[in-house]
Amino acid sequence: MDFWSFFVMDFVKQLQSPTLGFLIGGMVIAALGSQLVIPESICTIIVFMLLTKIGLTGGIAIRNSNLADMVLPAASAVVVGVLVVFIARYTLAKLPKVKTIDAIATGGLFGAVSGSTMAAALTLLEEQNIQYEAWAGALYPFMDIPALVTAIVVANIYLNKKKRNTADEYLSKQESFSKQPVTAGDYPDQQDYPSSRQEYLSKQQSPANNRVKIWPIVQESLQGSALSAMLLGIALGIFTRPESVYESFYDPLFRGLLSILMVVMGMEAWSRIGELRKVAQWYVVYSVVAPFVHGLIAFGLGLIAHYTMNFSLGGVVILAVIASSSSDISGPPTLRAGIPSANPSAYIGASTAIGTPIAIGVCIPFFIGLAQALGGG
Amino acid sequence: MDFWSFFVMDFVKQLQSPTLGFLIGGMVIAALGSQLVIPESICTIIVFMLLTKIGLTGGIAIRNSNLADMVLPAASAVVVGVLVVFIARYTLAKLPKVKTIDAIATGGLFGAVSGSTMAAALTLLEEQNIQYEAWAGALYPFMDIPALVTAIVVANIYLNKKKRNTADEYLSKQESFSKQPVTAGDYPDQQDYPSSRQEYLSKQQSPANNRVKIWPIVQESLQGSALSAMLLGIALGIFTRPESVYESFYDPLFRGLLSILMVVMGMEAWSRIGELRKVAQWYVVYSVVAPFVHGLIAFGLGLIAHYTMNFSLGGVVILAVIASSSSDISGPPTLRAGIPSANPSAYIGASTAIGTPIAIGVCIPFFIGLAQALGGG
Amino acid sequence: MDFWSFFVMDFVKQLQSPTLGFLIGGMVIAALGSQLVIPESICTIIVFMLLTKIGLTGGIAIRNSNLADMVLPAASAVVVGVLVVFIARYTLAKLPKVKTIDAIATGGLFGAVSGSTMAAALTLLEEQNIQYEAWAGALYPFMDIPALVTAIVVANIYLNKKKRNTADEYLSKQESFSKQPVTAGDYPDQQDYPSSRQEYLSKQQSPANNRVKIWPIVQESLQGSALSAMLLGIALGIFTRPESVYESFYDPLFRGLLSILMVVMGMEAWSRIGELRKVAQWYVVYSVVAPFVHGLIAFGLGLIAHYTMNFSLGGVVILAVIASSSSDISGPPTLRAGIPSANPSAYIGASTAIGTPIAIGVCIPFFIGLAQALGGG
Repeated sequence: MDFWSFFVMDFVKQLQSPTLGFLIGGMVIAALGSQLVIPESICTIIVFMLLTKIGLTGGIAIRNSNLADMVLPAASAVVVGVLVVFIARYTLAKLPKVKTIDAIATGGLFGAVSGSTMAAALTLLEEQNIQYEAWAGALYPFMDIPALVTAIVVANIYLNKKKRNTADEYLSKQESFSKQPVTAGDYPDQQDYPSSRQEYLSKQQSPANNRVKIWPIVQESLQGSALSAMLLGIALGIFTRPESVYESFYDPLFRGLLSILMVVMGMEAWSRIGELRKVAQWYVVYSVVAPFVHGLIAFGLGLIAHYTMNFSLGGVVILAVIASSSSDISGPPTLRAGIPSANPSAYIGASTAIGTPIAIGVCIPFFIGLAQALGGG
Repeated sequence: MDFWSFFVMDFVKQLQSPTLGFLIGGMVIAALGSQLVIPESICTIIVFMLLTKIGLTGGIAIRNSNLADMVLPAASAVVVGVLVVFIARYTLAKLPKVKTIDAIATGGLFGAVSGSTMAAALTLLEEQNIQYEAWAGALYPFMDIPALVTAIVVANIYLNKKKRNTADEYLSKQESFSKQPVTAGDYPDQQDYPSSRQEYLSKQQSPANNRVKIWPIVQESLQGSALSAMLLGIALGIFTRPESVYESFYDPLFRGLLSILMVVMGMEAWSRIGELRKVAQWYVVYSVVAPFVHGLIAFGLGLIAHYTMNFSLGGVVILAVIASSSSDISGPPTLRAGIPSANPSAYIGASTAIGTPIAIGVCIPFFIGLAQALGGG
Repeated sequence: MDFWSFFVMDFVKQLQSPTLGFLIGGMVIAALGSQLVIPESICTIIVFMLLTKIGLTGGIAIRNSNLADMVLPAASAVVVGVLVVFIARYTLAKLPKVKTIDAIATGGLFGAVSGSTMAAALTLLEEQNIQYEAWAGALYPFMDIPALVTAIVVANIYLNKKKRNTADEYLSKQESFSKQPVTAGDYPDQQDYPSSRQEYLSKQQSPANNRVKIWPIVQESLQGSALSAMLLGIALGIFTRPESVYESFYDPLFRGLLSILMVVMGMEAWSRIGELRKVAQWYVVYSVVAPFVHGLIAFGLGLIAHYTMNFSLGGVVILAVIASSSSDISGPPTLRAGIPSANPSAYIGASTAIGTPIAIGVCIPFFIGLAQALGGG
């Protein structure tokens, strides 16, 4: 009783948060046909500054804190990242009209992490004066990379298996002197990314060794612009004394830059809704439900760390939110290169148009409300 | 005596304002052939941030204030917006070598409002510690939209009338078996904007109903990037609690961002002067005189609100300045689409090269001096 | 003993400076293949803001200080700017496989000044709480312009002399009825910049007067975007009262904007290393040694001003650092136009890939250490 009244009150109060307000505002003005455009270069530098700031915060915190405290939350992040892909593989992929390969890629994107969603969560926690470990932002790569790697590995295993089956059929057909060539009917986007695909195939599927090599995928994730900026921030936070530039620049500008990015993400979400119509409607259902399911799993694992290792409730919320979030910057190019036969309209549409607004606008207030109800209960 | 000494002293003092300094500096370095370029994307985001800030200020103020206080100033703004177009129609348009349709468009642009000029006025008022209503920035659309709508409506009425006359002549010529086709001699720029023009003609001048539809023009104004940003700010100011992001980001950066924009506007003004040479020299006279005339009308109407409704003298200055200002961002595209037969060199040249520098560099100090002389007298 | 322990301690401490950290971080992530890109337009506006800030600081200081104090340091700057070109002419140019014309251009670039290196020095001095004259940043043009002018003049004198020799040879060959045309074997890049070259040749080498005109080179330097921004700042600092916008915007953002630029310069340095392989390896030796030699000369001249005119030790460091620095923004285009036959890979590669990182990462800490050891000794 007390728990639910707490929860509902808090949820409603957070809808007045300026961070969510800017997101919703962006959606509304896009829906009303506004001509407003935020230049691409501005978005790029904002993302750089937000992730550098999150990295610096994490790095400074790591320098001053006990690394043992990070072990359980980081392990939880890895578990959730891997799990999310398998959930998509055995739920979304089984639904009618959903191609298995698209479902695996979508799972990878929903397992990967959105820096801006995490930034929004950090800001909302501060608006509510909820404490969290300063290094919590550094959990990002522990979920992001395993999810992308798992998705690409699972996709390649699936494709190899299928190819062997096709090859077997082909051979048996050859034996029966059938003359029709087997068309690669399941690869409609194949010609879009031939170079990457060839590269990946030649790297990963050499005749002698049919396994997918994991290291190049990890490397590509780490080299992406989002993770680069964050790791740079972490390294600078650990090895230099960036407090002056952090306090005079990255920290005070964080909230404002985020507000601009929220407007962009709101407008982007609205404009992507059309793409979703091209793919099976089950993607809509998945994009609404998955952020909650993933977040609740992470929230549960986080609570274990809370009760055993004194991981803060604010930290539990962050873990849940990065699980709820789906990647919008770094994930798509990695997946395009790694799973070139998957349809980007499916996974990018689902993530940008629905997954991200749900994660920011509903899941963040939901998990904060849950944490406050637990803390206050 | 006391009034004039007050006024002159104050005027001179304000020329040392950094805001005006950056404007003049931009003109000077452009005149000296500087290679300095401020990227387009930077100007876009600066305008977005300035107008969002003005909107947020207005929205927060509206949330906390008595809307009744706004009625008289807002009504004054509407009156001035409409009046400015008719002034241009019955003065500028009557001058030799000035085409009526160009004069109407120029009137529309001088009636519309420049966000950066208004931002400069707000900054100068703060530099002089003059109080004004926080919602005064929200008067912007009340003058901007009526001016653009009036200009487009008046232009279309004029064109329809002319077309009927031409058609009558044509018919009478047909009767006298004249074989020369009537050339559309007054539409030199017609081919530049054919798609918009067709669209507007088909929308607005259907055979059955020869009236100009007003709503699409209002809608297009509201969807422009400048007004979108401002209305977004107003809505967020009213419906969310953006004080934290306002105080940490939009407010402290306002003055500095404006200084960069002033440099750009100074350089732009210098580079546009050449365009003015292509059109009748009466545009130069108009661009110098009109900001004062429009500003004085608004100042007078504002004084009525000052004496009857206790509207602050700072607010009167803002009303006068937005009347003095001519639109540089949102106005031109709306006018191009709405009055495609008008010559953009005429109205954009007059506004950007002369109107805006006069409004910022001379009218703002003039009206502030006037208000201080009145207040101190 | 005390001197050296002071010096070494200080040098090591400064390597933890965030400013150097961001530079090294940029090199490291580029070396690791990061996909991070900071948009060009962002770099442009950052450079504008940094140099405007340095100019404003200088202008405000000049307004409030005794100009006589500037005479000796400014004269030292001019001397160093000219000297650096002659050093390159009589050392680098004499080395095997180094073309004389490339060596002169490289000398010009190393004599010219880098605004970002100077900004880094100012920031590091502040991080170490070392006092310096606020107008010290205004020494920039006193070294930059003489170096570029000297390089272009020396290059043209060299080319004219060579051409006369070639012409003499040609004539003598003509006399011996040799029919082969003399190929312009030493001008491999000539065709890359034909228009500029023609323009310069026609301007500067008219048949009647074989001298190089100096004023157009000075003018071109002053019109460059870096010097324009700085001179605008100086003028605004002297003639207006920009303290409000300086304190609310340009000053607090300085350090943070510089940190972003350092990342870009680090990445840029790494990516340019490849270009150096195309030219003689003596450029590498020169780029490592020259910043120290130039800096030490300036440091010595600065010490004279320190002991005679009470020029601060912080000011001596700034003089030494601008001598160490090599131009990365304004210099290259001026040199391309002024010495079109020089190979840009040689001078830009040497400056950006090695000269700038050495100047920022090694020379700044070195000269600060030297000054502190002297001051504390």
